[in-house]
Amino acid sequence: MEDEPIMDVAHLGHVEILTPKPDESLRFFVDVLGMTESGRQGDSVFLRGWDDYERYSLKLTASHTSGLGHAAFRARSQQALERRVAALKASGAAVGWHAGELGHGPAFQFHDPDGHLLELYYETEWYQAPPDLRPALKNQAQRFPARGVNVRRIDHFNCLAVDIRANREFFERVLGFRLTEQIVLDSGVEAGMWLTCTNKSYDFAYTREAHGVGGRFHHVTFALDSREEILRAADIFLENGVHIETGPHKHAVQQTFFLSVYEPGGNRVEVANAGARLVLAPDWKPIRWTEAERKKGQAWGLQTIESFHNHGTPPLTEAQRGHKA
Amino acid sequence: MEDEPIMDVAHLGHVEILTPKPDESLRFFVDVLGMTESGRQGDSVFLRGWDDYERYSLKLTASHTSGLGHAAFRARSQQALERRVAALKASGAAVGWHAGELGHGPAFQFHDPDGHLLELYYETEWYQAPPDLRPALKNQAQRFPARGVNVRRIDHFNCLAVDIRANREFFERVLGFRLTEQIVLDSGVEAGMWLTCTNKSYDFAYTREAHGVGGRFHHVTFALDSREEILRAADIFLENGVHIETGPHKHAVQQTFFLSVYEPGGNRVEVANAGARLVLAPDWKPIRWTEAERKKGQAWGLQTIESFHNHGTPPLTEAQRGHKA
Amino acid sequence: MEDEPIMDVAHLGHVEILTPKPDESLRFFVDVLGMTESGRQGDSVFLRGWDDYERYSLKLTASHTSGLGHAAFRARSQQALERRVAALKASGAAVGWHAGELGHGPAFQFHDPDGHLLELYYETEWYQAPPDLRPALKNQAQRFPARGVNVRRIDHFNCLAVDIRANREFFERVLGFRLTEQIVLDSGVEAGMWLTCTNKSYDFAYTREAHGVGGRFHHVTFALDSREEILRAADIFLENGVHIETGPHKHAVQQTFFLSVYEPGGNRVEVANAGARLVLAPDWKPIRWTEAERKKGQAWGLQTIESFHNHGTPPLTEAQRGHKA
Amino acid sequence: MEDEPIMDVAHLGHVEILTPKPDESLRFFVDVLGMTESGRQGDSVFLRGWDDYERYSLKLTASHTSGLGHAAFRARSQQALERRVAALKASGAAVGWHAGELGHGPAFQFHDPDGHLLELYYETEWYQAPPDLRPALKNQAQRFPARGVNVRRIDHFNCLAVDIRANREFFERVLGFRLTEQIVLDSGVEAGMWLTCTNKSYDFAYTREAHGVGGRFHHVTFALDSREEILRAADIFLENGVHIETGPHKHAVQQTFFLSVYEPGGNRVEVANAGARLVLAPDWKPIRWTEAERKKGQAWGLQTIESFHNHGTPPLTEAQRGHKA
Repeated sequence: MEDEPIMDVAHLGHVEILTPKPDESLRFFVDVLGMTESGRQGDSVFLRGWDDYERYSLKLTASHTSGLGHAAFRARSQQALERRVAALKASGAAVGWHAGELGHGPAFQFHDPDGHLLELYYETEWYQAPPDLRPALKNQAQRFPARGVNVRRIDHFNCLAVDIRANREFFERVLGFRLTEQIVLDSGVEAGMWLTCTNKSYDFAYTREAHGVGGRFHHVTFALDSREEILRAADIFLENGVHIETGPHKHAVQQTFFLSVYEPGGNRVEVANAGARLVLAPDWKPIRWTEAERKKGQAWGLQTIESFHNHGTPPLTEAQRGHKA
Repeated sequence: MEDEPIMDVAHLGHVEILTPKPDESLRFFVDVLGMTESGRQGDSVFLRGWDDYERYSLKLTASHTSGLGHAAFRARSQQALERRVAALKASGAAVGWHAGELGHGPAFQFHDPDGHLLELYYETEWYQAPPDLRPALKNQAQRFPARGVNVRRIDHFNCLAVDIRANREFFERVLGFRLTEQIVLDSGVEAGMWLTCTNKSYDFAYTREAHGVGGRFHHVTFALDSREEILRAADIFLENGVHIETGPHKHAVQQTFFLSVYEPGGNRVEVANAGARLVLAPDWKPIRWTEAERKKGQAWGLQTIESFHNHGTPPLTEAQRGHKA
Repeated sequence: MEDEPIMDVAHLGHVEILTPKPDESLRFFVDVLGMTESGRQGDSVFLRGWDDYERYSLKLTASHTSGLGHAAFRARSQQALERRVAALKASGAAVGWHAGELGHGPAFQFHDPDGHLLELYYETEWYQAPPDLRPALKNQAQRFPARGVNVRRIDHFNCLAVDIRANREFFERVLGFRLTEQIVLDSGVEAGMWLTCTNKSYDFAYTREAHGVGGRFHHVTFALDSREEILRAADIFLENGVHIETGPHKHAVQQTFFLSVYEPGGNRVEVANAGARLVLAPDWKPIRWTEAERKKGQAWGLQTIESFHNHGTPPLTEAQRGHKA
Repeated sequence: MEDEPIMDVAHLGHVEILTPKPDESLRFFVDVLGMTESGRQGDSVFLRGWDDYERYSLKLTASHTSGLGHAAFRARSQQALERRVAALKASGAAVGWHAGELGHGPAFQFHDPDGHLLELYYETEWYQAPPDLRPALKNQAQRFPARGVNVRRIDHFNCLAVDIRANREFFERVLGFRLTEQIVLDSGVEAGMWLTCTNKSYDFAYTREAHGVGGRFHHVTFALDSREEILRAADIFLENGVHIETGPHKHAVQQTFFLSVYEPGGNRVEVANAGARLVLAPDWKPIRWTEAERKKGQAWGLQTIESFHNHGTPPLTEAQRGHKA
């Protein structure tokens, strides 16, 4: 009889991204993406989609550069949090407890093998909409804004990592994430991984960093309700002078219908929709994509744009750019 | 510190419905709904949506009447199955082990307090598409049929029950389902419950049986990828002479975009879409709808059709119809 | 050989509606419908959808009551205008030339047999977007607003009329409109007419006034690009406390996907989409709907709501309400 | 006072395409595109979308090669036909009357300056659906097939031409088509033209033939009701092994949402949707796209695929391929 799955992480809570252009970035997230500001603290503004149940799903922090501040997962219970903290401590990845971030209780911070900062918390603040943002239907966190792209909730994030396999094993063994899809090169080297702790087919993905630089960020993705809304989002990005990198199109991997843009601070932001697709099987057999299959491009034949492999944040220095794995 | 949630049931597996018109019902599910036949056994035909990962999600059984044969949930693991069997035996609801149904291993059968037959199993047969039904993308169970309504997968089912509260407590306590929304009358009597074991906002619902008759069935629902596909489904039902009971419209409860029809055997079948809505909070606070709120009708004001409260299968006898709770 | 069709009217230009609540009505059209203000004159504010090519498509005029101010059609050429003016003068319907309305040249005003004020003009002012409203694509009149419902352009209007047949014959014979669909009661009395001068299946409709009162208004309709946007519009109306009268649903007549609301001044406003449906046949054979067919309700079975037959603007007086045709 | 517009051509009627693989091409149009066979004559099969009002919109003819057989427009009236025949005779483009093609009356054939064969007719056969294809709603030509891509109606076609300007002037002057958009190179040479005789923003387009070979064909396009259906069409093409050349994406020119594939005979076929966009202005000012603007690619930044400029039918011979304009 196999070991039972670890079910201690409930879902992705929020992502902190750094921006060297905080005002323009804020206008992008509020006016173009349609997010709502729900708090400020220090150099950070906290933002939310209209159906995120927690106070926020994005922490936008002014910085000298771009990239990921941290990503945070919510544990399923206080006991579940404590079990994972014990496992993290045993793994050598632990940074330690961090208190005082707006909107949630004590968080245990740790580094993945690539050096990204992550945290796990349980106690959280449920969003309470002020009167002018109260929804008409009580099973919705906040009024639909009808402004810009109207992103609904955070969906997933994507980091770059030098050693995908090491990161995969860390998240599977220490935190109980399940691998749903991966890319494995002909050499056997893993080049991409999609992991979940929910019935979404992934809560985050790591793809391969080609320049040997740890800790870089690829994108954060917000969910919209339909592919039609993502097409309309493309119109809205165009009208607002936002750089559209690629899409709308359908990824072969995970079949996500995606649209990728760069926010003013340089970070890639994606809006996406996966229809009614869920991974319900508790023993899902990971899909392994080969090099030959990935060369076919996206689902309907769009070739993967070069910058999708190369653009990460923070940007590489000249010296780093010279290094090629 | 609160008790930790029971996480032993993974998802709804399949529903068996009875039909007094097996040939017409089969044509409805295959030609109009776009399902695929994946097996026969005795008086039953097994059917699947193009993205159900198990061999089937619907068992259609010839019978003298209509209604629910049984509904089946898949456990998260063998150990999880055994834990729930122990709990079911302790609860007094147990019927016993049942082996030999196509497509899955031993199932433990039990009755809910209203008398519906349910079962729990772990071992299952993953669907293997024959060559002509192989999908172009390997992360999909079966080729998209491009026939009729093209339902993707089973989504949920809905039963009638005389005592909603007793049924809710049974599913919560014995099986670990979580209540996400409910209707509570001014008298305090519970009139509807929506329960989940996944990140879908419900895997099944029970609404109140007004005639004191146990074990009746309200509907089974299949998921489509977009609201646009549900609108098109309405066109297809119209063209095929299928009785459209109500919709397309958006339920206030759960915000499901729905369309309800009667299949030839008399059972209500629904196609639905919930956009990107998921219940991710492990400690979701159930939404309680009052009588006054429900009188407002559906989300955009459509009055709930009378037959939605009264039509269940099997149909009531004359004597039963006289009895009114 | 048949007479050749009159092709002198090019399209519906604008509709003037009266409102006793000008400030609230203006906020509705700008903030909720997503229209843009493009001029003011006297008691009127001029408004436009983002793809109306003329300066405006809606004139909103403060008044002691609600209803239609006038509706205006653009002629195909100066000569076409003069031909129709001659025909109008000959018909006895002429009111006379009217100059000085914002945004277009001299207009010839006339009354239809039911007493509605209409006008025909040729010279017009093409909309010139100010810098902040310039579109990214030069084949679009104005930047997509990404605010509220985002109506694209005026589509059609609908009046009530006591004698449908007399009005139909007037528009066909004097102005060259073509009948595409109609409702004819078992008694032979005409109860509804849909007329076009374009490839749209109708540019306006008249339905029967049951109270013998002339000149009343039923609704003005703005086009959206997809049914998905109309569903989203329903959410937005709900969030903004706008009264949804009926829909979203699909009319059997013309197969329009519609959603009807009341603006704060009491006038009915519709948003609608007809997909790729066009009437391309120059000799289209009008569709005649019978009483029995109309009793089936809308396309997918929704019963036509009572207020759809009774609510018009301006509202009836007590005395008028007593009168029933 | 300007000359009045010629309004004698009503709409595109049908396109004949040649295929060296008639059986495979037929299966593509029937099983994948969802068209209905409505006649056979000689080496040709006649096909229709579910809302084409005439008997057919596509004539598929077995041949030794691929390409355009002919394209046919319907005149607005018998008199209109006779006026255009007189103008064609005067222009030197006339081929002569052709009778006996299935489904319509006498057609006057002519060549455009590039050598494509075209025809104009008035009398036509309205499609009469057999009992099993009768629609539920009487304002629809045929039952919605719910098979494959379900194309609704023919929308437009696109030819290649060596001298765009000569062709534009021919269609404008002799037949009264109106130019809505065009591409003009920095050299002043015209590289593309979009012409209409309806309120659709184009009924056909000609783009530049780079190899100096006359009479070649670029694509025929069928309309779908929504962008969502075009995305789904991409899935269906993928599942059926149909070569997807480019899209789904939005053209900058005309803002058409398009998806281009090759049918088995080698001809490019497009499915497209333009939302509620219509050209209603009788004096529309043509949009002129510059070389620099076209280098930006499609609306949302997709680079125009090389084959879109080079692939036409019939394919070039080796000798022709060497020649480059």
